[in-house]
Amino acid sequence: MSYCLGIKTHEGLVLASDSRTSAGDQVSLCQKMHIFVVGGERVFVLLTSGSLSLSQSVITLLRKDFDAGGGLATAASLYDAARVVGSTIRRVSDLDREALERDKLSFNCHFVMGGQIRGEEPDLYLIYPQGNPLRASIDSPYLQIGETKYGRPILDRGIKYDSTSLEFAAKYALISLDSTMRSNSTVGPPVDMLVYRAGDLELKYHRRLAASAPDLKEIHLHWEQSPRKAVMELPPIQFESVENQI
Amino acid sequence: MSYCLGIKTHEGLVLASDSRTSAGDQVSLCQKMHIFVVGGERVFVLLTSGSLSLSQSVITLLRKDFDAGGGLATAASLYDAARVVGSTIRRVSDLDREALERDKLSFNCHFVMGGQIRGEEPDLYLIYPQGNPLRASIDSPYLQIGETKYGRPILDRGIKYDSTSLEFAAKYALISLDSTMRSNSTVGPPVDMLVYRAGDLELKYHRRLAASAPDLKEIHLHWEQSPRKAVMELPPIQFESVENQI
Repeated sequence: MSYCLGIKTHEGLVLASDSRTSAGDQVSLCQKMHIFVVGGERVFVLLTSGSLSLSQSVITLLRKDFDAGGGLATAASLYDAARVVGSTIRRVSDLDREALERDKLSFNCHFVMGGQIRGEEPDLYLIYPQGNPLRASIDSPYLQIGETKYGRPILDRGIKYDSTSLEFAAKYALISLDSTMRSNSTVGPPVDMLVYRAGDLELKYHRRLAASAPDLKEIHLHWEQSPRKAVMELPPIQFESVENQI
Repeated sequence: MSYCLGIKTHEGLVLASDSRTSAGDQVSLCQKMHIFVVGGERVFVLLTSGSLSLSQSVITLLRKDFDAGGGLATAASLYDAARVVGSTIRRVSDLDREALERDKLSFNCHFVMGGQIRGEEPDLYLIYPQGNPLRASIDSPYLQIGETKYGRPILDRGIKYDSTSLEFAAKYALISLDSTMRSNSTVGPPVDMLVYRAGDLELKYHRRLAASAPDLKEIHLHWEQSPRKAVMELPPIQFESVENQI
């Protein structure tokens, strides 16, 4: 399983992904964050979930086109770039879907793409296995793929497009990943974390946090304790009985 | 969708359930907590998820047997009581499974049962649609059915069999439900909440919290704000770059 998420705020983007991959009981490591940059002109960060074989093929084809000066290298807008990813997914679907479905395996690969092209605002898309894109919005400023539910309540509470700073968005992303890794052992470190400030048009803030990273540990420990502290401050629950408190 | 959970601690049990039920786009209310008591001798609290038609049938048959002095009224242990629930699920499976599967509907009903029989400790079981029971343990002191993932991280962090008081377990249960209701609109209030102190052998602490209940609102509001406060206390994330902080 994977867990990746992208956050869009008024200041820019945060992208984060776990690194665990499993095929049956075989568990290994795999970076799920892929970067395409033409400095000063365009920046794309792709996160992947689903079948590693499929997402690898998509990234391989995207990279080949990009290196040849096509595909993501020439997309006129971020919407067009999302469409480039979508049509590449469809090329891999043409290659592999039939053989997978014959063996009752689904064609499953999801992408999150954040980035910016000069002259546009930064933006964030989710691209489905069918190739169609979904854009993040002011009301729904984050997008998740993979094991999405455990890490969602903290984002629902914390992320506001208009008011959340990039620094805080990055912390919420780490907590969201930490919550997911704690509840689902097939999601695991290292965590790749990338913060992109609007207008940068290059990648300045990247971090690969191993399980042993002191700041990841500190955030984990802090977050283990803080719900307990917060619960202690809650008002008592009244019950419908003579002894109306426990 | 439903969300129900049971918690077992050294002091007793907490059981909680939402009340929303939907069939297609038809959404209505339905209590998912069912109580069977012989005062001073035995107490069972059942929570249900899955197809309302199926869980209703199971409860109807359980109630009929109980009122006739059989089934849950005579089970010698809580394990036997979980087996009574399981065999009743199998009776309903014999009645309905074939017709459902002919129309590609799954036979889906899950139960959580908490309770106590005089002479035993309180205990907590999950009973699967196949009728087999799973018991909560010291290491896994809570059991969930329905939409389980959104509300799980807070339980993983808060609930310890040996040290969590019933008062706190009840608060964690409410936060877990609140998180789930916030992220999945098909899970909704009123919330039924029952706290059972070991040895009571009767039900003293019940509460049905409507969406408008001031204490549910206060807990919701408090919990909206507390993650933000906690995030503000987190250490900064260091990045691998010249400007190593955002």
